[in-house]
Amino acid sequence: MKINALVATQAGQPLRTGQVELRDLQADDVKIEILYCGVCHSDLHMARNEWGVSRYPLVPGHEIVGRVVATGDNVTKFSVGQTVGVGVMIDSCRECHFCKQHEEQYCEAGFTPTYNGTDKYTGNTTFGGYAQHVIADQHFVVTVPDNLALNAVAPLLCAGVTVWSPLQHFNVKAGDRVGVVGLGGLGHMAVKLASALGAEVTLFTTSPAKGADARRLGASNVVISRDAAQMAGCQASLDIILDCVAAPHDLDPYLSTLKTNGQLVLVGIPDQPHPSPNVTPMVFRRLSITGTSIGSIQETQQMLDFCGEHNITADVEMITGEELETAFERMLTSDVKYRFVIDMQKTRW
Amino acid sequence: MKINALVATQAGQPLRTGQVELRDLQADDVKIEILYCGVCHSDLHMARNEWGVSRYPLVPGHEIVGRVVATGDNVTKFSVGQTVGVGVMIDSCRECHFCKQHEEQYCEAGFTPTYNGTDKYTGNTTFGGYAQHVIADQHFVVTVPDNLALNAVAPLLCAGVTVWSPLQHFNVKAGDRVGVVGLGGLGHMAVKLASALGAEVTLFTTSPAKGADARRLGASNVVISRDAAQMAGCQASLDIILDCVAAPHDLDPYLSTLKTNGQLVLVGIPDQPHPSPNVTPMVFRRLSITGTSIGSIQETQQMLDFCGEHNITADVEMITGEELETAFERMLTSDVKYRFVIDMQKTRW
Repeated sequence: MKINALVATQAGQPLRTGQVELRDLQADDVKIEILYCGVCHSDLHMARNEWGVSRYPLVPGHEIVGRVVATGDNVTKFSVGQTVGVGVMIDSCRECHFCKQHEEQYCEAGFTPTYNGTDKYTGNTTFGGYAQHVIADQHFVVTVPDNLALNAVAPLLCAGVTVWSPLQHFNVKAGDRVGVVGLGGLGHMAVKLASALGAEVTLFTTSPAKGADARRLGASNVVISRDAAQMAGCQASLDIILDCVAAPHDLDPYLSTLKTNGQLVLVGIPDQPHPSPNVTPMVFRRLSITGTSIGSIQETQQMLDFCGEHNITADVEMITGEELETAFERMLTSDVKYRFVIDMQKTRW
Repeated sequence: MKINALVATQAGQPLRTGQVELRDLQADDVKIEILYCGVCHSDLHMARNEWGVSRYPLVPGHEIVGRVVATGDNVTKFSVGQTVGVGVMIDSCRECHFCKQHEEQYCEAGFTPTYNGTDKYTGNTTFGGYAQHVIADQHFVVTVPDNLALNAVAPLLCAGVTVWSPLQHFNVKAGDRVGVVGLGGLGHMAVKLASALGAEVTLFTTSPAKGADARRLGASNVVISRDAAQMAGCQASLDIILDCVAAPHDLDPYLSTLKTNGQLVLVGIPDQPHPSPNVTPMVFRRLSITGTSIGSIQETQQMLDFCGEHNITADVEMITGEELETAFERMLTSDVKYRFVIDMQKTRW
């Protein structure tokens, strides 16, 4: 079936409204009318082929909230009219060790990305959430709590679960001391989620102007990372750090703020390597540097339920499809608090 | 009390026999007549002040096996004539979180090193195992199983426990797939201990000549790390790697051999940073790089007991004190299988 979408046709051109073809509804499929889609930084990279893997036509978007408009014959989890979400994955092998233990993000065959992936049924390229509709297998669709503002839920589907997953994997609990590096799309969700879990959150930022916002979002402490005295004041004080900065940066000052046995978790991938971390404090205090990738479908649902209970959403700036290129440019200077979300119903198709 | 020792008096001079002063026996102290002391690479660095922290006169040595010759009034763990060992630590604060949970190696106040540390009672410099005697608090003395060749036990006190501790901390068990990088003092113990735990061991080495030895010591697989085809053959196959090479080297090829959730454990500290590891596989497969430092007294005793049960000792080359400088020079070219041990009774004082 053909649907309306915001389509990138080549690297140097802005996205324009157009049409792409989705697969026919399969027995386990849910068809979703998209209400809102968050604008992840990776969407910009992919639209512009900055990672060299983009296939055109390309429709970005993997922070999707919408309503079910059709269901396949086997669908039991969802019914028409229900509010649902789709994140970064729309399929995986379902058979490997990781799929079987609900960690599809580490599927040994590689999960099927929501866009720019290869559809398992048709072999065609998958198209994402900058569109009026999306189709996904019910296993990869999650339920959105009714009490939340739906536009501000959209970024939870990628930014939210990307920081939620390490908080769960490393068992962060009330009283733990959690550092968050960078107050952007991921960082602001890390502050909100970690503080709602009862952790004492320290935000590291290079921007003194972000201090008040960080405290409003839940941080107990704000440390200006360029201020050596402030950094010295929090040596060996943190259990875990979620480093949400994808640009290359020196990890050593953050390692020094970890307690013995502490974890520095990298959720972003820099385009150039970080400076090499100093092994000495890692050995003498048994520190770890770990990467983690998004989160599972189960974790996504748990996070959404948690957000429903704690009334947590992202801080968003709403745009229409026509404003997307301006939003991309503003993202390049981190001029967004803290995620752009496209309103599909206000977009002219 | 004065004792005979091999003493470094300044950075550029060979060690010579001489005398140093030990503290008087305290109530909790054990006085040990040293039979054997292993020669750790750090002894060479310290004797020559290559880390810039050496205090002269300096007596190296922290892989000590000997017999109890005197005990203080409070000593209950040991009696005269018993065979015992002393490793890298002879004291710690005993009060911090880590000391209380039997992880003195991470003591928040810093443990007291067996040599070149500061004696808690006298404030004097501590002197190590290249000597006829050593004095240590009973808590930092371990029991050596009677069935083992004592000269070959000495290296277990540092090299052995340094690889045993991460095997325990990361819960390596029968059937796990363990990589070991480098077949030297630490690496050869890692191969022996991991295989005795029932793990399937893959040894990575740059030296094809070491393959037969590695298999004799317990490795199931030997991979020449400079051979791209061999490295490609073990992608994503290992649960954990103990990287026993202290020289700077590229960690990325080893990261690629880890399964999702794998651990790359660094037990050596390079004098220059390793090339910066690639974050991409760390994120996409939730890989960790962790440092660990020696092991606790409890772990040291557990390891010695395990070695007693499994009849494990180090592979050693015996020397006398007069042969030490020659041994140091051979260590610089990795020309030792796999640890030099000084025979104190054959050394002329």
